[in-house]
Amino acid sequence: MLKVGIIGAGRIGKVHGESITRYVKGAQVQAVADAFLNDGIRSWAAEMGIPHIYDDYHKILGDPSIGAVMICSSTDTHSQISIEAIRAGKHVFCEKPIDHDLKRIQAVREELAKSDVKYQVGFNRRYDHNFRAVHDAVAAGRIGEPQILKITSRDPNPPSVDYIKVSGGIFLDMTIHDFDMARYLLGSEVTEVFAAGGVLVDRAIGEAGDIDTAVITMRMANGALAVIDNSRKAVYGYDQRAEVFGSKGQIAISNDTASSAVLSGENGVVAEKPLYFFLERYMQAYAEEMNEFVDAVVHNKPTPANADDGLQAVRIGLAAKKSYEEKRVVRLSEIQF
Amino acid sequence: MLKVGIIGAGRIGKVHGESITRYVKGAQVQAVADAFLNDGIRSWAAEMGIPHIYDDYHKILGDPSIGAVMICSSTDTHSQISIEAIRAGKHVFCEKPIDHDLKRIQAVREELAKSDVKYQVGFNRRYDHNFRAVHDAVAAGRIGEPQILKITSRDPNPPSVDYIKVSGGIFLDMTIHDFDMARYLLGSEVTEVFAAGGVLVDRAIGEAGDIDTAVITMRMANGALAVIDNSRKAVYGYDQRAEVFGSKGQIAISNDTASSAVLSGENGVVAEKPLYFFLERYMQAYAEEMNEFVDAVVHNKPTPANADDGLQAVRIGLAAKKSYEEKRVVRLSEIQF
Amino acid sequence: MLKVGIIGAGRIGKVHGESITRYVKGAQVQAVADAFLNDGIRSWAAEMGIPHIYDDYHKILGDPSIGAVMICSSTDTHSQISIEAIRAGKHVFCEKPIDHDLKRIQAVREELAKSDVKYQVGFNRRYDHNFRAVHDAVAAGRIGEPQILKITSRDPNPPSVDYIKVSGGIFLDMTIHDFDMARYLLGSEVTEVFAAGGVLVDRAIGEAGDIDTAVITMRMANGALAVIDNSRKAVYGYDQRAEVFGSKGQIAISNDTASSAVLSGENGVVAEKPLYFFLERYMQAYAEEMNEFVDAVVHNKPTPANADDGLQAVRIGLAAKKSYEEKRVVRLSEIQF
Amino acid sequence: MLKVGIIGAGRIGKVHGESITRYVKGAQVQAVADAFLNDGIRSWAAEMGIPHIYDDYHKILGDPSIGAVMICSSTDTHSQISIEAIRAGKHVFCEKPIDHDLKRIQAVREELAKSDVKYQVGFNRRYDHNFRAVHDAVAAGRIGEPQILKITSRDPNPPSVDYIKVSGGIFLDMTIHDFDMARYLLGSEVTEVFAAGGVLVDRAIGEAGDIDTAVITMRMANGALAVIDNSRKAVYGYDQRAEVFGSKGQIAISNDTASSAVLSGENGVVAEKPLYFFLERYMQAYAEEMNEFVDAVVHNKPTPANADDGLQAVRIGLAAKKSYEEKRVVRLSEIQF
Repeated sequence: MLKVGIIGAGRIGKVHGESITRYVKGAQVQAVADAFLNDGIRSWAAEMGIPHIYDDYHKILGDPSIGAVMICSSTDTHSQISIEAIRAGKHVFCEKPIDHDLKRIQAVREELAKSDVKYQVGFNRRYDHNFRAVHDAVAAGRIGEPQILKITSRDPNPPSVDYIKVSGGIFLDMTIHDFDMARYLLGSEVTEVFAAGGVLVDRAIGEAGDIDTAVITMRMANGALAVIDNSRKAVYGYDQRAEVFGSKGQIAISNDTASSAVLSGENGVVAEKPLYFFLERYMQAYAEEMNEFVDAVVHNKPTPANADDGLQAVRIGLAAKKSYEEKRVVRLSEIQF
Repeated sequence: MLKVGIIGAGRIGKVHGESITRYVKGAQVQAVADAFLNDGIRSWAAEMGIPHIYDDYHKILGDPSIGAVMICSSTDTHSQISIEAIRAGKHVFCEKPIDHDLKRIQAVREELAKSDVKYQVGFNRRYDHNFRAVHDAVAAGRIGEPQILKITSRDPNPPSVDYIKVSGGIFLDMTIHDFDMARYLLGSEVTEVFAAGGVLVDRAIGEAGDIDTAVITMRMANGALAVIDNSRKAVYGYDQRAEVFGSKGQIAISNDTASSAVLSGENGVVAEKPLYFFLERYMQAYAEEMNEFVDAVVHNKPTPANADDGLQAVRIGLAAKKSYEEKRVVRLSEIQF
Repeated sequence: MLKVGIIGAGRIGKVHGESITRYVKGAQVQAVADAFLNDGIRSWAAEMGIPHIYDDYHKILGDPSIGAVMICSSTDTHSQISIEAIRAGKHVFCEKPIDHDLKRIQAVREELAKSDVKYQVGFNRRYDHNFRAVHDAVAAGRIGEPQILKITSRDPNPPSVDYIKVSGGIFLDMTIHDFDMARYLLGSEVTEVFAAGGVLVDRAIGEAGDIDTAVITMRMANGALAVIDNSRKAVYGYDQRAEVFGSKGQIAISNDTASSAVLSGENGVVAEKPLYFFLERYMQAYAEEMNEFVDAVVHNKPTPANADDGLQAVRIGLAAKKSYEEKRVVRLSEIQF
Repeated sequence: MLKVGIIGAGRIGKVHGESITRYVKGAQVQAVADAFLNDGIRSWAAEMGIPHIYDDYHKILGDPSIGAVMICSSTDTHSQISIEAIRAGKHVFCEKPIDHDLKRIQAVREELAKSDVKYQVGFNRRYDHNFRAVHDAVAAGRIGEPQILKITSRDPNPPSVDYIKVSGGIFLDMTIHDFDMARYLLGSEVTEVFAAGGVLVDRAIGEAGDIDTAVITMRMANGALAVIDNSRKAVYGYDQRAEVFGSKGQIAISNDTASSAVLSGENGVVAEKPLYFFLERYMQAYAEEMNEFVDAVVHNKPTPANADDGLQAVRIGLAAKKSYEEKRVVRLSEIQF
């Protein structure tokens, strides 16, 4: 039985804790730590049957019965806690991004190189049934040589402007998932990035120094072209689609809905909107993500999304940012640490 | 060049005349006859370039240059004109039904047996791209042995009560197409019929002695079960679907729409309603129907829907009527002439 | 915390035990009883953390800490154990059917009338996201007055002939779910039944005295017509669809799939087959079923499928059997106990 | 009755001639001219009832009974014949592109400015039922302010390398339709273009100096971002889709198929491939295009795609070519004549 400690008990920390408690055989949550403990966290921990609650995550790192930690704290703490956890010999699941600064990600990787702990980054979409079906079909050669990848990724509503100010910008905050998805679906690295964008949803986002709409074109090492389109606001809900086109065909996925019900009436033939946001859409993916992390730790397998995956997604994000600012194609090799 | 005469220039007569003029190579309309000639018919004939207009169809039958006639007059005249046309040596396309009375249909068949004219009955759905795709897949064995056939056939609006009174009832007027479709799709004869029904759309239809909603179950000679559901009023338009289930799979067709456009908005994901009614939905089928009639005449092939097909559909309709009235299964062998 | 005992640890007993353990807040499995205890049951119980394992269910009935029992034993024991459990003051969740014999169901109902325990019957499809969406739309009046209901219910493979011999026949074993669904979706009682059927899948099923393919037409108290089609074998998987047509439109549901992936290639545009069978398709429905049972017990609400629902489905099944055997419409009022 | 002359009786010339003969009321083909007359052209003209056949198009220009000409000859002759036709006072329908050279297009426009003839360019997709549905929805404000446009445009097979050498390159030959579509669907001009591409289908295309796969990103004057993806070879057929996303929702269209038949079997749920190529997919659009041209001439309306539309599409194509060659964003204002 792998005992885990959760560091950071916000929304995503609770999601992971609940997944481990309910769906993961062979693991249990031994402790949760949060610098801002409150009644909500306490009652949640009680409900989950978590024995220990701390306000200092070092108590988790110091508990020899705990084999792995989930780093779910704020982004600016990810790399530092990662390094401490690796030094403490704990396996690490770290929410994305590891850091906005490549040097600090590199420091984590160097620490990892000296240890034998497992390190997994929270790219939850890799475990989604739809994206995985595309990945598996491409990997199995069912569409032949991949030539064009298209990802649509649109949120139902922008986050608060306060959040946007510390988010690192749309490319590091939102598109980062799509950058990882491009690498995952095609099994190839990004070599060039061109990003176009604009403030089409909310002027306040522009005033905060960010954009809310973007189209990013990438060239991959295997020759394929990839294009991502993002919006911070789709009124019909969370729009998460992908298609990969290749020499033998195309595979495409559409959005999940709460039911397959279709109502034919005087005003048309009406199906349901996509599931509203990431917790609904990726609920099962989050559970599967925990399962695979525990499986990697317990059976000494590679993690399905490692520190290098975490690094590359941030690199691509930085390249996109530079491309947008300089209005030119940026080669990924320009982005070094 | 086959010259044809059109007898009856109502809506369906004009559809056929236009099809021949525009889409059928190797045929042209030489004359049109209608007992109630009016300006609408005259200007339509002029537009189509039809040389002769008569108020007496016997002039068509007497024109030796005319090789075939299209009988598009009122139902009660179909069998009589059919017999006269056959005697005059004209090939015959006759709108459905040949007659409501089996004895009179039999008289047409006996006349046909003495002649070598082609006779085709107007079961237009046999030429529809969707129904034909089902037919072809079943005939090619792609679903294995057929076991269950389901046909949905619903009109967008009931006809006038005046029409209903002379229509022969829902089974002979509306379901007759579906009875023919069951035989066409399965390539097998009906042996037993059970019809349930009700007046759920408009009480006036009930007062006219008819029903407006029906579910008809049939057993086929090949063992398959078939079920048809009918309504005189689907608010979302003309609903024309079928599915055939068999030992190796199922084939199903859905409705045609004006475009594939789908609008995702705050109120759902909205596709278009089905094409509104039979002229829109079956426009191409009507053209193809004329093509195949002319092809059968010119190349001396069997017609794709002959007098026996016309007879069987009426027999099944009469069986359904009897089943509904007597609330029991009726064997088709009970319906003789 | 409601403590429950599971009586019968076969496939469905384990499904319910797992649902309670993982997904139901406020309940836990205190004991499991099975007359044929084996290592599989023991290791499963250990994994679930179930404290007590018995070979005699009376030990569950005698444990005062247990508030509710799940009767998941063989069908022939359901009514007897139900009565004993009610007398012991336990709330009861009973798998369908309560019994094949209406008199014995009636005995359960009489016992219930003397008690105040909750009684829920295992019609799991009522909790499925798709069927519930149809139910809710109909109940909300979104399709107006219901006029035609169509249910397609086909299994991927027939059960063993040994099972078929004790199953009570297709109408009581398989169609019973669809009979309940007709009542649930339309909110109306069945008044007349006509059943057609045949042995089209496997001759051995016929030799065992049953049929494997059926089409059942029903008239409902509200005037609507309902039609169910069943097959014991759909090569493409578990086919579970429904549509309700009414004065204001139609609502229809299609099958669930493992993913939305669609592969366009040289051989066509290929989507996934339906989820293979009931455990995959109704996994979430089973969890929701347990949730609602516990909710009814804990909060003293009516159960969503009670003993009368259990009785009516069996009555309709018996009417269908009689209709098939006598080749006539059977009024439900003919089926009394 | 408008009499038209067809200049160039290749594939597209015959399509237009047939459309006029069969589907356009108020127009007829008076003459056809082709420098390379052959038996195929003669028998086709006979079948269509076209009175005159010439090998010199000047005979058409000199026939005072002819009111309009269809320029369907090779691309390099379009602008020259356009100018001659305008000077002869004939209304002109000209296949796309008017020319690869902006100066020569400009010469046509200058000639038009001095005349009052109608000039329509052959952007046939504007008349397609699907694209038109998107256009109309966007124009009606149903998706609010457009923010992202995505067009997928893939051919089933590349043309011959000989053709590619004189085609002007993928952007002027193939994407030109999509550039026009972007302007048509959004009702806004292109301001910036970035084109990425590669030779992923056939090395011989690369050796001929062209590419076969492209992703083009554009910024529109209204702020929207547009992205087009092209391939010369989709094994599943002609892939022609579009979606427009905006502040109030999204509208999307999918491919047309020969029928709606879907076959569920052991290997999946299989729908038909898209209609194979442009003649099948756009057959009705071609007829409608002729109808609207004749309507513009006869009723003195603006043509739905005029010389400026022809010019802009070529400008965007030249900008895309420059962008691809120079690996940078090209502003449309850089492309002058």
